[in-house]
Amino acid sequence: MNTLQDAFEHGLQAVYYAEQTLLKAMPQMAQKAQSEEFRAALEQHEEETRRQVMMLEQVFQTMGIEAQAAPCKSVDGLIADAQELMSQAQPPALDAVTLAAAQANEHFEITKYGTLVAWARELGRQDVEGILQQILDQEKQTDQKLTRIAENLVNQRAQKAA
Amino acid sequence: MNTLQDAFEHGLQAVYYAEQTLLKAMPQMAQKAQSEEFRAALEQHEEETRRQVMMLEQVFQTMGIEAQAAPCKSVDGLIADAQELMSQAQPPALDAVTLAAAQANEHFEITKYGTLVAWARELGRQDVEGILQQILDQEKQTDQKLTRIAENLVNQRAQKAA
Repeated sequence: MNTLQDAFEHGLQAVYYAEQTLLKAMPQMAQKAQSEEFRAALEQHEEETRRQVMMLEQVFQTMGIEAQAAPCKSVDGLIADAQELMSQAQPPALDAVTLAAAQANEHFEITKYGTLVAWARELGRQDVEGILQQILDQEKQTDQKLTRIAENLVNQRAQKAA
Repeated sequence: MNTLQDAFEHGLQAVYYAEQTLLKAMPQMAQKAQSEEFRAALEQHEEETRRQVMMLEQVFQTMGIEAQAAPCKSVDGLIADAQELMSQAQPPALDAVTLAAAQANEHFEITKYGTLVAWARELGRQDVEGILQQILDQEKQTDQKLTRIAENLVNQRAQKAA
């Protein structure tokens, strides 16, 4: 990995791995969700993530490189931590803990796409920068929506029930 | 883990682990940094992180609970990924890749402290909410500073040298 182009290609492969791996973990999170609004948000994000995987495939195609996933220990770790916490937590703490794990996943994606957008711009690849910016905006919106659900609903319920 | 208080205490232990573990990994990142401005930012953040560990100990003390670290696979994964990338990357890509890894660490902390601040508020613990908010603000400022260094210096150098 010698050039910014190399780093960019590896970064794409890393988010491709992240999206696919997090997608597989989402149904379990939605299933654990106690509050309807939270479950609906997770299910909606699952659909969005499927579209993001296709958007990433479009980026690979535009770049003329094969769509490949580069495994990341950080993604595996996020999922392992979430599963461990969800197995230990009971209602009313369960939703608060699951929602925090979902936000950790979003922030992981936000930093990765933020980097990729900056690198695409520097590489003069406006053709893929726009797609990556669109995914980044979606991840930020999901994070903000989860913050609203946490503050207005999940945390209050967890505290009231205690 | 049944209550929001339980979740909060575990979350504190998790960031205590994160800060201590990331602190140990910082000198290696600073040593790898090619650009002086980037290295200085990493070294400054190392000092700040030492103070944050003490601030967390103050939170534990105020809460009347023992300062304990709860290992997280996600933190271990972030460090493992960073080390693997730094070992594979050569200048001029090296700084861009190292900086992206440093920002991934910041975003991990931002999401964790964001959750802890919200939980402290819900629990009516204004006494520790302020300290956690202060750390959160510092992490966000570090992330913004790294973005500026990336966009104005590191990425440009990586692309020009290619």
